[in-house]
Amino acid sequence: SASQRPSKPPPVKHYKLNGLTTSNDPKTNRETVLILTPMAKFYDQYWNNLLALTFPRDLIELGFIVPNSREGNIVLGKLQKAIDKVQSGPKAHRFAGVTVLRQDFDVPVSQNEKDRHALAAQKERRAAMAKARNSLVFTTLGPTIAWVMWLDADIVETPHTLIEDLAMHNKDIIVPNCYQRYTENGVQKIRPYDFNSWHESETALKMAEKLGPDDIIVEGYKEIATWRSLMAYELKDGGQIHAETKLDGVGGTVLLVKAEVHRDGAMFPPFAFYHLIETEGFAKMAKRLGYQPWGLPNYLVYHYNE
Amino acid sequence: SASQRPSKPPPVKHYKLNGLTTSNDPKTNRETVLILTPMAKFYDQYWNNLLALTFPRDLIELGFIVPNSREGNIVLGKLQKAIDKVQSGPKAHRFAGVTVLRQDFDVPVSQNEKDRHALAAQKERRAAMAKARNSLVFTTLGPTIAWVMWLDADIVETPHTLIEDLAMHNKDIIVPNCYQRYTENGVQKIRPYDFNSWHESETALKMAEKLGPDDIIVEGYKEIATWRSLMAYELKDGGQIHAETKLDGVGGTVLLVKAEVHRDGAMFPPFAFYHLIETEGFAKMAKRLGYQPWGLPNYLVYHYNE
Ligand SMILES: Nc1nc2c(ncn2[C@@H]2O[C@H](COP(=O)(O)OP(=O)(O)O)[C@@H](O)[C@H]2O)c(=O)[nH]1
Ligand SMILES: Nc1nc2c(ncn2[C@@H]2O[C@H](COP(=O)(O)OP(=O)(O)O)[C@@H](O)[C@H]2O)c(=O)[nH]1
Ligand SMILES: [Mn+2]
Ligand SMILES: [Mn+2]
Repeated sequence: SASQRPSKPPPVKHYKLNGLTTSNDPKTNRETVLILTPMAKFYDQYWNNLLALTFPRDLIELGFIVPNSREGNIVLGKLQKAIDKVQSGPKAHRFAGVTVLRQDFDVPVSQNEKDRHALAAQKERRAAMAKARNSLVFTTLGPTIAWVMWLDADIVETPHTLIEDLAMHNKDIIVPNCYQRYTENGVQKIRPYDFNSWHESETALKMAEKLGPDDIIVEGYKEIATWRSLMAYELKDGGQIHAETKLDGVGGTVLLVKAEVHRDGAMFPPFAFYHLIETEGFAKMAKRLGYQPWGLPNYLVYHYNE
Repeated sequence: SASQRPSKPPPVKHYKLNGLTTSNDPKTNRETVLILTPMAKFYDQYWNNLLALTFPRDLIELGFIVPNSREGNIVLGKLQKAIDKVQSGPKAHRFAGVTVLRQDFDVPVSQNEKDRHALAAQKERRAAMAKARNSLVFTTLGPTIAWVMWLDADIVETPHTLIEDLAMHNKDIIVPNCYQRYTENGVQKIRPYDFNSWHESETALKMAEKLGPDDIIVEGYKEIATWRSLMAYELKDGGQIHAETKLDGVGGTVLLVKAEVHRDGAMFPPFAFYHLIETEGFAKMAKRLGYQPWGLPNYLVYHYNE
């Protein structure tokens, strides 16, 4: 009978969540980081940048969620190949764990930049993104994780010391400034990309009061003049890269979160939450849970330029 | 070097969330159920009732979260002993997995029934409970789970076919009616215990409009006349035990939830969410996510009588 076959030890696992530390030096203190990436496209530059991070890989677990579409199949193929290469290489260079999830719902909006950034598409699109992020964190966040780093699949360049640099601040939630490289008349330039990291304004709050319960305010659209101050514009030439600023909304392209913030319940609202949605709603929810989001206006990471 | 040692296969795991089914017959369809219990006290009757459930144990994972207090140490000892006994017994009788978490924050209110039910203590206490529930589900919900069954540690008696009976309805969220046995003049009687499963009322909605943003309405207190209809009072003598009713608030003593509801983001708000908190807030959040909670007024489960 089944009971007489040789068997592995009973799978009982005890974890002290109160024994998990999050410190300003997770490398020395051996704190595990879960890097989470919703991935609608696979970019080699994302993967190479990930591999170039200096944080020890035996302290990094990776989690991906790939859309349930034909494009998703292609992404899955490329991702699988890239993972297999690293994880079958020298043991010392492998990540501590990798989970790849296939989404169980469809993406409502096409993936080209113009379509997906159209104001009319924002609510539906960002609700779907929020659900993808929630599925990913609810499904992969195990009991040994101290930090969660959200890293979008189209982040193609960051300092290699990204994790150490962000964790050093020892904040509940911290977000760098997400820019984009472009060329104008043959000259290499940079411009702000992510407008979701901001400080709240009286105007936006007054605006919110007049909205219906399901209406959302999204940031970065001239149709909606919120007068919020955007971290995107707070980059100071020659400024201290570790300068900190308190935020009310955050973007999710690169976002370091103490795991306890998610464990307490902070998720990405796929519905209007104080008229905010997805990562901006997450910041508000974290604040409702007693946590404070911070930003680093002079610390740059770069988004792919389509 | 480390890379030359023999090594297990690289830990890459692929999961199709879209391949997870939830059907009206999870036993036949081999759907995994995660039973989650926040546990401030260990009752033998709870454990014996759990062991008496007829749903196959190889499809059941267990998750517990125990308070970070001196009382918690005692609970942990008893729980550990009980688990070890089952999990070191015949393999065919073991649960598929067991995770025990130790909470990382303290409980604000004492555990005796009178104190914890005092209206003044409700907000703080239920916020702590909500965080405990969130920590538990965020940390234990893995990619293979189809259903989550919340089962309080002081539920001492249920039909042994509980999981099959609730799942049969194939609802997003379903809650039985939680009663309590007591003796009056030597006669065994039952009375309603959990008042958190209800249908919304106009009175409560109007009441909510006048509240401050952090105020909550809790159910089951004469100080707050909400005029909501409570499922507790909808038990019909001789009624069909599988009669269904749509609900707006739910209690968490016994609560079956499709895992996708949590994965989409439904959690237990530890803050006022539409002036609701914890399990009642969870029902509202699930509704905002497009899911519908249901109740079974004639299907009884029993709470411990202190
Ligand atoms: N799993 C999943 N990932 C998505 C979906 N849509 C976008 N993504 C990924 O989510 C992140 C943010 O989406 P993106 O379209 O780049 O947003 P934007 O940069 O704000 O326009 C990127 O990593 C995308 O690859 C989706 O429907 N499902
Ligand atoms: N982990 C944890 N469990 C708790 C805490 N307080 C209560 N519980 C458990 O959570 C469930 C509900 O709490 P209980 O006090 O019975 O609520 P009531 O029946 O509504 O009064 C029970 O299973 C308790 O054992 C706590 O602070 N931490
Ligand atoms: Mn992007
Ligand atoms: Mn109880």
